[in-house]
Order: sequence, then structure tokens, then C-alpha cells
Amino acid sequence: METQILKGAPVAAAMNETMKADTAALKEKGIVPTLAVLRVGARADDLSYERGAMKRAAAVGIEVRNVVLPEDVDGDTFFRTLEELNEDASVHGILMFRPLPKHLDGEKARQMLVPSKDVDGCTDGSLAGVFTNTSLGFAPCTAQAAMEILHYYGIPVSGLRAAVIGRSLVIGRPVAMMLMHENATVTVCHTRTKDVPAVTREADLVIAASGQMESVGREYLREGQIVIDVGIGWNEEKQKLCGDVRFEEAEGLVSALTPVPGGVGSVTTAVLCRHVVDAAMKCG
Amino acid sequence: METQILKGAPVAAAMNETMKADTAALKEKGIVPTLAVLRVGARADDLSYERGAMKRAAAVGIEVRNVVLPEDVDGDTFFRTLEELNEDASVHGILMFRPLPKHLDGEKARQMLVPSKDVDGCTDGSLAGVFTNTSLGFAPCTAQAAMEILHYYGIPVSGLRAAVIGRSLVIGRPVAMMLMHENATVTVCHTRTKDVPAVTREADLVIAASGQMESVGREYLREGQIVIDVGIGWNEEKQKLCGDVRFEEAEGLVSALTPVPGGVGSVTTAVLCRHVVDAAMKCG
Repeated sequence: METQILKGAPVAAAMNETMKADTAALKEKGIVPTLAVLRVGARADDLSYERGAMKRAAAVGIEVRNVVLPEDVDGDTFFRTLEELNEDASVHGILMFRPLPKHLDGEKARQMLVPSKDVDGCTDGSLAGVFTNTSLGFAPCTAQAAMEILHYYGIPVSGLRAAVIGRSLVIGRPVAMMLMHENATVTVCHTRTKDVPAVTREADLVIAASGQMESVGREYLREGQIVIDVGIGWNEEKQKLCGDVRFEEAEGLVSALTPVPGGVGSVTTAVLCRHVVDAAMKCG
Repeated sequence: METQILKGAPVAAAMNETMKADTAALKEKGIVPTLAVLRVGARADDLSYERGAMKRAAAVGIEVRNVVLPEDVDGDTFFRTLEELNEDASVHGILMFRPLPKHLDGEKARQMLVPSKDVDGCTDGSLAGVFTNTSLGFAPCTAQAAMEILHYYGIPVSGLRAAVIGRSLVIGRPVAMMLMHENATVTVCHTRTKDVPAVTREADLVIAASGQMESVGREYLREGQIVIDVGIGWNEEKQKLCGDVRFEEAEGLVSALTPVPGGVGSVTTAVLCRHVVDAAMKCG
């Protein structure tokens, strides 16, 4: 069976076009959608994500304000900075890199961030919104990126049985809720699930989000499935980026599959930017 | 096969004993756990629940403050009353009957209630706590009552496959999350699920919470299952209270089953009181 490869690039490109139109309309009203990126120190993965987000933001007309604090910043300075960004009406979204260094209270920071600017979906307000299906805050970007791919490729979710592997707050739990809100019948698998392959084989749609590289092989899958691979990690042996799914075992078996890289990950920053534009539109 | 009937009364009785000890200890510190019951008008089901809650509260040493406003109370008065209860340090929990009359903004009221006093688990703070598995606010009482029954009867949830029928915010979604936090593998079924009996027959544990009276019959069930019936309604034809499960079809087939009445419903006010005591203990 030929497997449709669900690439992220056209999804992001379509989102870009809509955002460009929206930012142009906002600018006519004198509003420049602005994302503050709050980073403490200079971790490699933060820097890499920041570069991707800044590139995407520039392409769609979002201004980025980089707020960089030293690794050893004191708590007072950090929380004052966050509070100022909360209160600054010219900032529409705040991307706060986490985890914060150990000497800063990460939980306090998460609680302090106002849900209306929580474009990365990490506050309780945003998570309550995902749970209750209201527009309080914003969904976590990766979870929404998986949904955007399904929408773009016209894959109707309603009535499908879906299996989500992984129950994290950044992807497993929120994507399960988002699928349920679109009328899928969702099962969440996790480390304590007895027979994950038995569950996933029953599903029409599999979301692989355990973060266990190449853990999902042929025995988890069957013909006709749609598989969204949320994992991404560096495979030392193969010397390349790999997802949670063994791509070569899934290809040719399932109906549709996202690649890694070039799948969900390539849509995540587009979702982040979409949230900034949405936040700015609420002010306009 | 003989079916164990999981009655609620011994569960509530055990909870009462613990609460009595806790309220006695609090009183030695000069703290009287206090529940404010905020009711607008006099709907029959509100009055019935209020009577049950007051009786339970009296039995365990919780003081109840009844705040009754007329059906046509104006918004200013209602919201000022709620705000005063939020701010009153001698009130530990607030039970606000909903839905409110149409001329009052129910969503605003729900948002205004402080999560630390939200003993009925209706605010976004409480719901975020259920989703993230933190002790922010309180779980909805009925969802927790189902869990209390499982705990009391020593039914280990970890590793089980569970099917929840219904996705409401008062029971289906929160109980699904609570089961998942205890390591069950949970599937949520709803009106758009294609073959609910096929899903529930796979499960070891079935939570019937669709609110469709006597909708769950033999074809949904199999030997060895544990069945928790959350439904309760008046069956005109039979002239008695019935649950979502056809009791006579489940009895003799499944391993364990909650009755209606006398099952989940009889534990709900004990959970409400437990929350009030917990809220008071946080102040002590």
C-alpha cells in the first residue's frame, strides 16, 4: 500500500499566508503583533527553537523582542521582568523557555504568566482551556501542530478511534482532549499500559508522543491507519534525526504518516506565531 | 457469576469517621470548617442536594452557612455576595448551585469563585488541577466519588483498561483524567463514538456516565468487569430511581457493580464535605 507522507511544510506555508494577511490588517490599525522571547542563559535547544521562531515571525510580520537574562539572574530580577512583560500592552505573546535554572521557581513563573499572553500553552489557564474546550489561553503548540496537519490534509477526525501514546502535558494529554473535542474516541496509552500494540492496532489514528525514539514498529500498526509522529531525537547510530516511529516499518503499511524531520516539528513555530497574531487580534 | 454490589454507604461511613477526627483536631486549633451554600431561588433538585449536604455536614462537624438569594436577585447583589464569601476567611468552601437564573452571568460567577474554596470543582482552576494532576482547587465531587468507591473496595486501577461513557465536565472528562493519573488506560466514549459496546466490552472497568437512563445493557458488558454507574434518574414506567446501567442485565454477569440508588450518589456529599475539611486544614 502506498503511504501518503504528510509533510509539515505546506501546512506551515498555508498558515503563513493567512498570518501575513492578518498582520497586514492589524498594522493598518496601528497594531504590530509582538512576541517577547524570555530566555535565561543560552541552552542549545532554546537557541535553536528561538532561531526558528524568529525566522518564522519575521516572515509573517511579527515583531520579536528578545529578553535575555544571565544564567545566574536573581529571582527578583527575573520575576520583575516577567511581570513587566505581562503588563506591557505592546507585547501580545510571551514565550518563556523552560525549564528555568534550578534557583528560579519555575512553578511560580508558570503561574505568573498571564494566560492571555501564554502563546506556548503552559499555564493552568491554557490547560484548563484545552480541557474545557474554551478559548482561555492557548493550546500547547506541538499538540496543536498535530491537529493542524490533520486539518490541512482534510483528514476527518470525527468518529475515528484514536490512540495517543504518551500522557505528557505538552502533547499527550492536550492532543487527546483536542481529538476528543473533534469527536474522536480517544485512548491514552502510557508506560503503565499493559499491551500498547494491542491498543494502537485497534485505532484508526495513532499519535506517537512518548518521546521514545523508534519505539513504534510494525507490531503497533496496521493497514489503513493515519500515523502522526510527534517524537524527534538524534539517533547516534544512524547519525540522523528520528521520530518515535520506525519510519521504514510504517511506510508501505499505513495510509498516511508524518515524516521526521519535516513533519509536526516544522509546524510548531507556525502555531506559536498564529497564537501571537490571535492574541494581537483580540486587542485590535 | 456472583456480582459484588459496591454500596456507597460504607464508603461514606468510613469517610465520615476520618472527617470527624479531622474536624475535632481543627476545632482544638479554633478552626470550625465552614461551608457556605449559595443558592438563588428554590429549585427542587438544589433543595434536595442542599438537605443531603447539610445533614452530612452536621454529622461530621462542619458548619453550614446558608446564603439564599431571591430568584430575581440583581447581578450587583449576587456578585457582591459571592465576592464577600470569597474574601471571608471564616468560610472554607463555597457550594454555588448552578445553573444560575438566566439573567445572571453564570460564566462570570464560575470564574469569580476562588479555586481554593471551590469545593464542588467547577472553576477553571479546579479543572486545570484535575487535568495536570496537581492540588489546585478540587475535583468535581461525583467524579471523585467514583474513585473513592474503587479505593474503598480495594480495586486496583493501575494497568486496567477503562472505558468512560460520557465526556461531561462534571464527570466523564475528570474521571477519565483521575483514572489515567492512577495508571489506567482510559478510553472516553461519547455520542459520536461509532460502536460504544465494542469499546466497553474491551474494558476491565466501565464508568457509565452518559446520563442516558438504562442505556447500558448486556451487550455493553462481559464477565469479570467492574461497573460504576454514575447515572441517576426517575424511571416513570418503573416508578423508581434508575441508573445508566440496566441493573438486572449486569447483575450476575459482571464482577462488581454499584447500585442506583445507594451507589455513587451516596458518596458525593461525603466528598463535598471532605473538600471543606481539606480546605480548612490548609488554613490550619
